[in-house]
Amino acid sequence: MQFDTIIKNGTVHTSTHSFVGDIGIIDEKISAVGGAGQLKANKKTKVINAKGKDVIPGCIDVHVHLALPFMGTVSCDDFESGSRAAAVGGVTMVVDFAAPTKGSTLQQAHEAWCEKSEGQSLVDYSWHMCIVDDRHLSEVPRMIKQGLPTFKEFMIYASQGWQSDDARLFATLELMNKHDSMLLVHAESAGVLDLLIRRNHTQSKMKRLGAKLHAMTRPNYVEAEAIERAIRWCDITNGTLYVVHMSTGEGADLIKAAQSRGINVWAETCAQYLTLDDSLFGKRDGHLYACQPQIKKKADIQRLWRALDEGDEISVVSTDTCSFTRKQKAMWKGDWTKIPMGLPGLETLVPIMYTQGVREGRISMNRLVELCSTNPAKIMGMGVRKGHIAPGYDADLVVIDPKRTITFDYRKSQSRCDWSPYQGMKLGGFAQTTLVRGSVVVENHKVVGKKGHGTLIPREHPGSL
Amino acid sequence: MQFDTIIKNGTVHTSTHSFVGDIGIIDEKISAVGGAGQLKANKKTKVINAKGKDVIPGCIDVHVHLALPFMGTVSCDDFESGSRAAAVGGVTMVVDFAAPTKGSTLQQAHEAWCEKSEGQSLVDYSWHMCIVDDRHLSEVPRMIKQGLPTFKEFMIYASQGWQSDDARLFATLELMNKHDSMLLVHAESAGVLDLLIRRNHTQSKMKRLGAKLHAMTRPNYVEAEAIERAIRWCDITNGTLYVVHMSTGEGADLIKAAQSRGINVWAETCAQYLTLDDSLFGKRDGHLYACQPQIKKKADIQRLWRALDEGDEISVVSTDTCSFTRKQKAMWKGDWTKIPMGLPGLETLVPIMYTQGVREGRISMNRLVELCSTNPAKIMGMGVRKGHIAPGYDADLVVIDPKRTITFDYRKSQSRCDWSPYQGMKLGGFAQTTLVRGSVVVENHKVVGKKGHGTLIPREHPGSL
Amino acid sequence: MQFDTIIKNGTVHTSTHSFVGDIGIIDEKISAVGGAGQLKANKKTKVINAKGKDVIPGCIDVHVHLALPFMGTVSCDDFESGSRAAAVGGVTMVVDFAAPTKGSTLQQAHEAWCEKSEGQSLVDYSWHMCIVDDRHLSEVPRMIKQGLPTFKEFMIYASQGWQSDDARLFATLELMNKHDSMLLVHAESAGVLDLLIRRNHTQSKMKRLGAKLHAMTRPNYVEAEAIERAIRWCDITNGTLYVVHMSTGEGADLIKAAQSRGINVWAETCAQYLTLDDSLFGKRDGHLYACQPQIKKKADIQRLWRALDEGDEISVVSTDTCSFTRKQKAMWKGDWTKIPMGLPGLETLVPIMYTQGVREGRISMNRLVELCSTNPAKIMGMGVRKGHIAPGYDADLVVIDPKRTITFDYRKSQSRCDWSPYQGMKLGGFAQTTLVRGSVVVENHKVVGKKGHGTLIPREHPGSL
Amino acid sequence: MQFDTIIKNGTVHTSTHSFVGDIGIIDEKISAVGGAGQLKANKKTKVINAKGKDVIPGCIDVHVHLALPFMGTVSCDDFESGSRAAAVGGVTMVVDFAAPTKGSTLQQAHEAWCEKSEGQSLVDYSWHMCIVDDRHLSEVPRMIKQGLPTFKEFMIYASQGWQSDDARLFATLELMNKHDSMLLVHAESAGVLDLLIRRNHTQSKMKRLGAKLHAMTRPNYVEAEAIERAIRWCDITNGTLYVVHMSTGEGADLIKAAQSRGINVWAETCAQYLTLDDSLFGKRDGHLYACQPQIKKKADIQRLWRALDEGDEISVVSTDTCSFTRKQKAMWKGDWTKIPMGLPGLETLVPIMYTQGVREGRISMNRLVELCSTNPAKIMGMGVRKGHIAPGYDADLVVIDPKRTITFDYRKSQSRCDWSPYQGMKLGGFAQTTLVRGSVVVENHKVVGKKGHGTLIPREHPGSL
Repeated sequence: MQFDTIIKNGTVHTSTHSFVGDIGIIDEKISAVGGAGQLKANKKTKVINAKGKDVIPGCIDVHVHLALPFMGTVSCDDFESGSRAAAVGGVTMVVDFAAPTKGSTLQQAHEAWCEKSEGQSLVDYSWHMCIVDDRHLSEVPRMIKQGLPTFKEFMIYASQGWQSDDARLFATLELMNKHDSMLLVHAESAGVLDLLIRRNHTQSKMKRLGAKLHAMTRPNYVEAEAIERAIRWCDITNGTLYVVHMSTGEGADLIKAAQSRGINVWAETCAQYLTLDDSLFGKRDGHLYACQPQIKKKADIQRLWRALDEGDEISVVSTDTCSFTRKQKAMWKGDWTKIPMGLPGLETLVPIMYTQGVREGRISMNRLVELCSTNPAKIMGMGVRKGHIAPGYDADLVVIDPKRTITFDYRKSQSRCDWSPYQGMKLGGFAQTTLVRGSVVVENHKVVGKKGHGTLIPREHPGSL
Repeated sequence: MQFDTIIKNGTVHTSTHSFVGDIGIIDEKISAVGGAGQLKANKKTKVINAKGKDVIPGCIDVHVHLALPFMGTVSCDDFESGSRAAAVGGVTMVVDFAAPTKGSTLQQAHEAWCEKSEGQSLVDYSWHMCIVDDRHLSEVPRMIKQGLPTFKEFMIYASQGWQSDDARLFATLELMNKHDSMLLVHAESAGVLDLLIRRNHTQSKMKRLGAKLHAMTRPNYVEAEAIERAIRWCDITNGTLYVVHMSTGEGADLIKAAQSRGINVWAETCAQYLTLDDSLFGKRDGHLYACQPQIKKKADIQRLWRALDEGDEISVVSTDTCSFTRKQKAMWKGDWTKIPMGLPGLETLVPIMYTQGVREGRISMNRLVELCSTNPAKIMGMGVRKGHIAPGYDADLVVIDPKRTITFDYRKSQSRCDWSPYQGMKLGGFAQTTLVRGSVVVENHKVVGKKGHGTLIPREHPGSL
Repeated sequence: MQFDTIIKNGTVHTSTHSFVGDIGIIDEKISAVGGAGQLKANKKTKVINAKGKDVIPGCIDVHVHLALPFMGTVSCDDFESGSRAAAVGGVTMVVDFAAPTKGSTLQQAHEAWCEKSEGQSLVDYSWHMCIVDDRHLSEVPRMIKQGLPTFKEFMIYASQGWQSDDARLFATLELMNKHDSMLLVHAESAGVLDLLIRRNHTQSKMKRLGAKLHAMTRPNYVEAEAIERAIRWCDITNGTLYVVHMSTGEGADLIKAAQSRGINVWAETCAQYLTLDDSLFGKRDGHLYACQPQIKKKADIQRLWRALDEGDEISVVSTDTCSFTRKQKAMWKGDWTKIPMGLPGLETLVPIMYTQGVREGRISMNRLVELCSTNPAKIMGMGVRKGHIAPGYDADLVVIDPKRTITFDYRKSQSRCDWSPYQGMKLGGFAQTTLVRGSVVVENHKVVGKKGHGTLIPREHPGSL
Repeated sequence: MQFDTIIKNGTVHTSTHSFVGDIGIIDEKISAVGGAGQLKANKKTKVINAKGKDVIPGCIDVHVHLALPFMGTVSCDDFESGSRAAAVGGVTMVVDFAAPTKGSTLQQAHEAWCEKSEGQSLVDYSWHMCIVDDRHLSEVPRMIKQGLPTFKEFMIYASQGWQSDDARLFATLELMNKHDSMLLVHAESAGVLDLLIRRNHTQSKMKRLGAKLHAMTRPNYVEAEAIERAIRWCDITNGTLYVVHMSTGEGADLIKAAQSRGINVWAETCAQYLTLDDSLFGKRDGHLYACQPQIKKKADIQRLWRALDEGDEISVVSTDTCSFTRKQKAMWKGDWTKIPMGLPGLETLVPIMYTQGVREGRISMNRLVELCSTNPAKIMGMGVRKGHIAPGYDADLVVIDPKRTITFDYRKSQSRCDWSPYQGMKLGGFAQTTLVRGSVVVENHKVVGKKGHGTLIPREHPGSL
């Protein structure tokens, strides 16, 4: 064996087991896995000493929005800066959402996203196709053939022209069943949400309450009702459903009950829903924290962590990264409905799970790998090549120094965002070394990879573990 | 690397992933896992060609009774013949039950089982300690320290002096909580079971109905009520419970509901409950099929397979092997309560799961590995060394030829039993090659290992995955 | 005591007890109830001999549409013919639905209904106020003050301008909570229903399938999803909800689960959903049977009867009477979406419950009284004066000859409808004698009352038993 | 009409309705019910002015133990003093428990109870037959024929020789199904209860904790497990079960779930479980409060009242009256297992429900009637003559002055008990007037009836409402 690279003596974690050993890489693939010191380097072999370090399969953030035109601006991290942030955070692949502009096709959106990402990304990528027009339904088979078997619909966002009604949700889920594909939904209940916004959208309330109104107009039941309804259509159509960025305990209860009845439904939560709570909206600059769905209560944080610890109802943790600068966020001018909604987060996904999850004893390293790497890979249809450490799998690998902790500072981060919801937080779990398909893109916590290394990964057969 | 043995080019299955590759062994351990052809042999290396073959971690039958004194006789397979049967069936470790004789201690039972197994077994082994006297409770910590952290109680068998009442169950589960150990229960409801037996135990009925009375006196609720009660005590005490040989759909429903409420309860079923149904008791020689609990209805078979396919309620498949010859079974003389209860099965566990499960499309190879190897290893407290294929794990490995199918014939089997419930069944999935800690014990479907190779494996921290 | 009328020696049934006795009436009220032969007539007393007869409190059909402008025509039974049908069927009060014309107010609708009913009805009446515009919400307190505390919204009928979205449902339920009133909903899920209609609304399908398309485009889940959603809003707002004309087993399951969680939700079914099934749409003239929701499957009939027998999930049986003649129904011209939707039924409500319910042993006479008289009176806010036989209650009384059975023939009925879904059915349970507030309106099965006897009954505090 | 007695102008409450009116009585029966002032007295008629008073059907305490030999003594209230207490408390009938002495038959027990009650009681009575020997099962049909269709078994009390095991429970429930009768169970889980008692039954603990040990050794799950098991046997056998003196919220949850699955199970709670909590055991003389099951926590009180308010899971409120004097209670001498278990209560049942229930707004007067009169009458098989106010029903009537409140003092009570758990409590709801089958037994709150007026009431077809 002539390994190109060997990661030696690391504590290797997969989704189910851990052991101390070596990982040998040839070209883009893991070629062998050996006990500590078993794999032999030759002169050409790059040896990465991982003694005392954790080695995990590269994480996959299946919910990001890079350079997304949204609410009158464009999210400030693109595939270049976003993928740099990903890499230092131990994320070796991202899945974005390709959203057609008004009147355009899914194919055109796909091509626009190809163009946007071409030559930009350090890490691998793909995208879910956003269905925002009934005519897009006819393109489903074509997108699947191109390795894009996951679709997205929104149950809100009528003003952006994105909102799906029950009929479209239903028809799409039928197609998912027919074509072995999966629908992602943004589940919030539009009618009552809009009512609550209308009732509160007055000058006097906005003056008095400011960004707090964001949380006040989105009680937990706004998410719960939409999830309940989506589950019903999924059940009827025998489709496959994936609830994105689930933020409430009520949601977790609904998913658990549906899975127990045998319905094909999956859920993801995001790092922010596991760490931040809506008391932040009362702070100066509280508007910065606005995202959709918004961060919830401390009780939801607890319920979601409990799901990760004990249950199966949440299968994936992602970030919904959609960064806006302070200047962009300032567009709100006191009206919470005009805040560009979204948070930076790609860089901190794994660190948060490592710090708040593993170090706090809530989850094991194996469970971290399962939630951030193995499950996303399998559910999104690329489990045969990503999300695992075994011969033949993509050499997407991350080395973490368990002893290192930093105080997070956005000024030293890769994101272009000039603030962070995690500013000042003590975080471990950043990547000392990151390899994407065998190439080192982060070394000693510094980006060394070149943009354009990342490539579009075809996917198929999503929706199962 | 100087491998002692390489299994080359196999299709390797773990509980979560599959790949084609090589497995290198040094001494008793897996030393490296490589892509196909990646691991290099030297002159001394034994090379096992597994091209086109399935390679799985050795299966672990955590429920066997070898040479058990029971119902006036002794089960006919001992550690020698039993472990031969295990090995040809792809089982590389068994867990027996050490039952104290009247008045003796757990320590004495442990020593008796050491003596019984010493130098006899080809495969590794351990035993659960049977608590049949309140005084045994004080020995729990001592047994745990000796690597025996799993205990067994019976909710029936008053006449053998084995029956635990609610008080003992409760007190034991409290201890399990305190000492990080696990209680296995034989869950049948003694009071009503005995009533039904008494009502039917008449000459005229026995004459007319014979072995059918075995099933007629044990309706499904006999198991269900006992499981429900054991779950309640487990919940109250925050203990850890493992329901052995669960045979009913009702049981699966109860376990599912309890797990969903966060109770630490696990369940195993056995191969016979997945294949045989109680119409057999109506056959000539129907009494041969008597085991406790007895085989149930076709609807239960379906419900149990559904649990294996879709759910988490059953974590382990075992055999409850307890072989009795035709002559021993003949002791019944028409009275079903006197039948030596038990079936042979060690040899056919993996073949049945492979044939009825994988080939029939009910479960994947990964799920087979999970149910018969990874989960038993983890739940019984030896997941750090058994049940997985990765560097550092015991080189317990089984090579299966997916193309080979035989017509099962007890006369060609390793068991001493002179009949089999699976006689004449078409079965694949037997071990072409079996390695136990690096040593080949089966080669080309023939036993080549020596008795005494197997050893007592210490276990700790049972009761979780 | 100088009774105006005595009903003597009847078998008197209330919702909880039965006894043989006399009922004495003075003016409009029940004045005394005595054992058989206990109440004494004087010369002026009208004596009605009820020996061997059943005597029940007058039934109340809380769901009728008399002279309703709908789908381009007007339902053919008005307050005159409708109330005659009611009276011979043992119904002594009806509750209609006052629907504002486009742009008009609830008050105007109320006045229109006053005008429409003035001097026409033999039986008492009231109406639920249909909220079809957000501006109607401000009129809620005013309507309550006028004795009209029940409101109705439709989750379908966008083309009629009646459809409420989630926001209006939510806001109305909030008001119901605030003002001690109750919302009735027509629960069908508009989005998916319209999708299914659009998909099937082709010439070729209509030619081939005709009226069958009515059932084919309304699978049970169309009702179930809407009920589930309405329940959620009811739960959130702590409102009080009443699901009208529930036709599915799924609905019954949802109501039962919601009640068990303490949500204030009630359900009514209609006689047609307890007797007719959708195989009728395949008959010649199948289009006649079209109503909304449509009649369902035999399994639903069974589930609904089971609810009436064993459960609490259905509290009321009504008719949703909305009669259209053959000529009116002929407007469909092969397009099921143009069928004037509705069935005659006022006359046969009690006979169906008596024949299919009591005589078939599914429910007791007491339960019939509870479902058709006591519960409707209480839930709709007039339980203090109607729905019971005791001193002080309105002398709304019905005498039924248990031995009499007729073959139902629309030609001999009071309805103006020139057909009936129950044509030819053997039915008992028609009123031999009917009294409305002390006046005999039916005698010896013949209408003897005068139109205009009926009056608007003020109601208050609906929504509880 | 020549009424013997008229109760005039009262506010009459039945289980479903209320009205102001007169009740006319001839002999032992209610002969007529009229509006206020409608019934005319003649010279011989006794007129009871009930203007401004509540009039309810006489309550029925279906769980009393009068002169019961128990724990080495005999409960101090017998049929004479007990029935006097009943009468002043508005209870017009009691149902005791006839317990065979060791080796005797049900028939002998019945006769002993006849003898014990003969000529003693002011109020009507019956008894449930206690099955404490398998041989008693054969007497079930005979007892039913004598009007005694309800049976009782105990899941504890092995030392008294009363304990039923699962086999007897099962066999009895089978008989109940066969013979249209009902089994009452005392549901506590013997095995674990005895374990907890054994563990705590030490001199040092008894010295330190005294009567507190009674509560400490009976955690809620002791009741819950037994109820769960009894429900299972009821379900399997399709029997009819009535859980007596249910004291826990867990029990209420289990009953609710079972009823929802269609199992024929009913539950009663007692006044003490709705008012007293186990902090009393910490008081001086805390041992006086010992009963079995013991009074529980404040949370249970709340849960049980919630069941009475909102649910159907509890159908009856009774007292489990079993009075022991201070001297009798003193037999405990510091050992809580030797306390004669039981409390006085017959006199205060209705007052407690009236004061804590109706006046506190938890339940309506109609619900009080339902729980204490109508339901007990129906469930115990005498609903055709007791528990209601209508012509033909027994003239068991109670007049209550809603304005009167007393400070309860055992010294002024009818019970022979020289203490009361309700001493000093402000209570309304005592009977100003009580009639038993037409005879006034309490007048102006004083006993005026003669012992021996009460008679054994035959019952049939118990177990339904």
